[in-house]
Amino acid sequence: MNIVVASSGGPTSAINSSIAGVYLEATKHSNINKIYGALNGIEGILENRLVDLREQLGSGEDIDLLRLTPSTVLGSCRYKLPKVEDDVSVYEEIISHFKEYDIGAFFYIGGNDSMDTVCKLSRYMSQNNIDIKAIGIPKTIDNDLMYTDHTPGFGSAAKYVAATIKEITRDSMVYSAKSVTIVEIMGRYAGWLAASSCVLRERGETAPHLIYLPEVPFSTEKFVEDIKAKQKEHKAVIVAVSEGIKAEEGCYVAECYQSGENDAFGHKYLSGVGKMLEDLVKKEIGCKVRSIELNVMQRCSSHIASKTDIDEAESIGSNAVLAALNGDTGKMMVFDRISDNPYRMEIKTVDVGGVANHVKYFPIEWINEEKNNIKDEAIQYFLPLIQGELSIKMDKGMPVHFRIKNI
Amino acid sequence: MNIVVASSGGPTSAINSSIAGVYLEATKHSNINKIYGALNGIEGILENRLVDLREQLGSGEDIDLLRLTPSTVLGSCRYKLPKVEDDVSVYEEIISHFKEYDIGAFFYIGGNDSMDTVCKLSRYMSQNNIDIKAIGIPKTIDNDLMYTDHTPGFGSAAKYVAATIKEITRDSMVYSAKSVTIVEIMGRYAGWLAASSCVLRERGETAPHLIYLPEVPFSTEKFVEDIKAKQKEHKAVIVAVSEGIKAEEGCYVAECYQSGENDAFGHKYLSGVGKMLEDLVKKEIGCKVRSIELNVMQRCSSHIASKTDIDEAESIGSNAVLAALNGDTGKMMVFDRISDNPYRMEIKTVDVGGVANHVKYFPIEWINEEKNNIKDEAIQYFLPLIQGELSIKMDKGMPVHFRIKNI
Repeated sequence: MNIVVASSGGPTSAINSSIAGVYLEATKHSNINKIYGALNGIEGILENRLVDLREQLGSGEDIDLLRLTPSTVLGSCRYKLPKVEDDVSVYEEIISHFKEYDIGAFFYIGGNDSMDTVCKLSRYMSQNNIDIKAIGIPKTIDNDLMYTDHTPGFGSAAKYVAATIKEITRDSMVYSAKSVTIVEIMGRYAGWLAASSCVLRERGETAPHLIYLPEVPFSTEKFVEDIKAKQKEHKAVIVAVSEGIKAEEGCYVAECYQSGENDAFGHKYLSGVGKMLEDLVKKEIGCKVRSIELNVMQRCSSHIASKTDIDEAESIGSNAVLAALNGDTGKMMVFDRISDNPYRMEIKTVDVGGVANHVKYFPIEWINEEKNNIKDEAIQYFLPLIQGELSIKMDKGMPVHFRIKNI
Repeated sequence: MNIVVASSGGPTSAINSSIAGVYLEATKHSNINKIYGALNGIEGILENRLVDLREQLGSGEDIDLLRLTPSTVLGSCRYKLPKVEDDVSVYEEIISHFKEYDIGAFFYIGGNDSMDTVCKLSRYMSQNNIDIKAIGIPKTIDNDLMYTDHTPGFGSAAKYVAATIKEITRDSMVYSAKSVTIVEIMGRYAGWLAASSCVLRERGETAPHLIYLPEVPFSTEKFVEDIKAKQKEHKAVIVAVSEGIKAEEGCYVAECYQSGENDAFGHKYLSGVGKMLEDLVKKEIGCKVRSIELNVMQRCSSHIASKTDIDEAESIGSNAVLAALNGDTGKMMVFDRISDNPYRMEIKTVDVGGVANHVKYFPIEWINEEKNNIKDEAIQYFLPLIQGELSIKMDKGMPVHFRIKNI
């Protein structure tokens, strides 16, 4: 049989490592012939845009490069599979492409929405006695997938956020005048990534002095009070804020700065909560203030990836192949944490149906009483995920990336 | 005699390496007793906030950490020295502090405005037969100081910009739909840093497909045309734009997004040109578009500093001490490039009066005819400055920084 791997949703620094894991594991099994990569997720399946990964990944050097290339070399999509009762033809079309390429297993690397695709597709195939396995491999810097201790891609994003806020803190402390620096961090529904910045305390930083997450309602009045209180202790106040913070009424705080556009899944594009809070501080407090959006650098800064994350992303990809060979389908691979210190992790499977269209929120019990910072208990959760550095290949002073050839 | 070093203006990743250079050189000369660091530049001199660097920098390990700590451990200021004819008392006050601490030489690490301070102060001291040397040590990520081939801090900023735009390019290419990504880069008056992103071509990238600098007038109509033309060749168009681009009329393109506030030197705070162009593309072209402000990460991402830059920053600090011991005053240290390949550089001095309040613009002859990209000739200028990586000290997965103790 042949297999196909594809990726979907927003990029991370660890997707390519999962692709490497699928590839490397597959090469060990003589019953797997072709190892295909579909370009742009399900779109590539539907449009016959498949590449032969044995041709693409010739050498060990290629694999090493692939593991440390940000984003996904296979491309991505935001394709939403209709309900089977609304349009069965798409399902039939996908299956006909699978059969054309003699696909025995389909591996889909993605987040919430991608697991929805794996769920619908595997259910359709099971109901119709089509023996093609569909396995979901988690990835999201948001860390908001159910039933897994954490998601591949999150550790590298968290490491970038920690290092960058630490550097921003040095930058912000240079002047003798009072200042406020607001760092806007990705996290549409869940505040894991903004919360992870609390790890800086482990190395003696007091920053971020305030951390705001979407999990608790945000009040602009309380925010201004919080800043004023922190200014009594710190000349340069550093604030970490999730893009998705919501007001009491349930609407996004950044709403007035939004374009109002939605993506294919009905999500609102968010941006500008940092800028909005900057304006608020300027108006209400009047001190020097700056907002910084960490933007896509959070998810693509492979040059400071977490070794733990990149290694785990490969392992979970590899285990996905073993699961399919073991007869699993309609499953998502998950991490199960055995212990924090020493850090021990096992890889298991769960039914993908429980994952799709659910959000794993940051635990309320790890948020302080004032709802403006993270408790120390969370540090031991985050810390293992950002450990280890990788030696990236540089040429002429710039990182080298792997790219799919001839497309 | 004793000496004092201080820093002023915006932070960079290389200032601390120049402090290390001043310190290490000074320790070699038995006629130099105390090596002071003044906190917050001239403010620290006026307020007796001096630290003894021999106490602070005990070990070789401290020096190694210092060299790779972003920003400036001595803090900075935006203090503008009045003209001597307007207010001589400040000059008298500074001199009295210098005498109190038996200062024989003052080293000021800074950009344009700091060189203005060195110029005024050294002129006043010479005219009044006060034998205290004042030497300027250049630093700015803007690379816009006269008479020096380049400035310490620029190489590390350029390396960050190149690596980051390369990673952003991978991130931007994942979807099959057309998209435009606008990267806003620092550079108030001169476009050196945005221009430096052309080095990516040396490693086979086509991005950035368009580069806009303050040196040539910017037209929003031409910009939209440029984007449309590039979209015929590239699915994901990547644009690098200086924050300081100006319209034909001479006003900043970002003006409508500005707060209108000025800093102590009368500079306008700029931000938002990327956002403005994002809105323009959305309105005029209607494709997926994102703007990314590289913000302070350009100047504080020590974790991806250029070894060449950090080493040179130390050398120029060291040479400043030698210049003062040689009797120089009212000078700025400069780099004189002997050759591009092999890269060879000499350190010399120039009269600081020729540097202060002037701007070295990016050469028009290195801008293409269409005024929307950089010619290949510039690559050989930029490339040596971003070479080499440094092994930064990490602990618990995060960079370790040096900090001044007990203040």
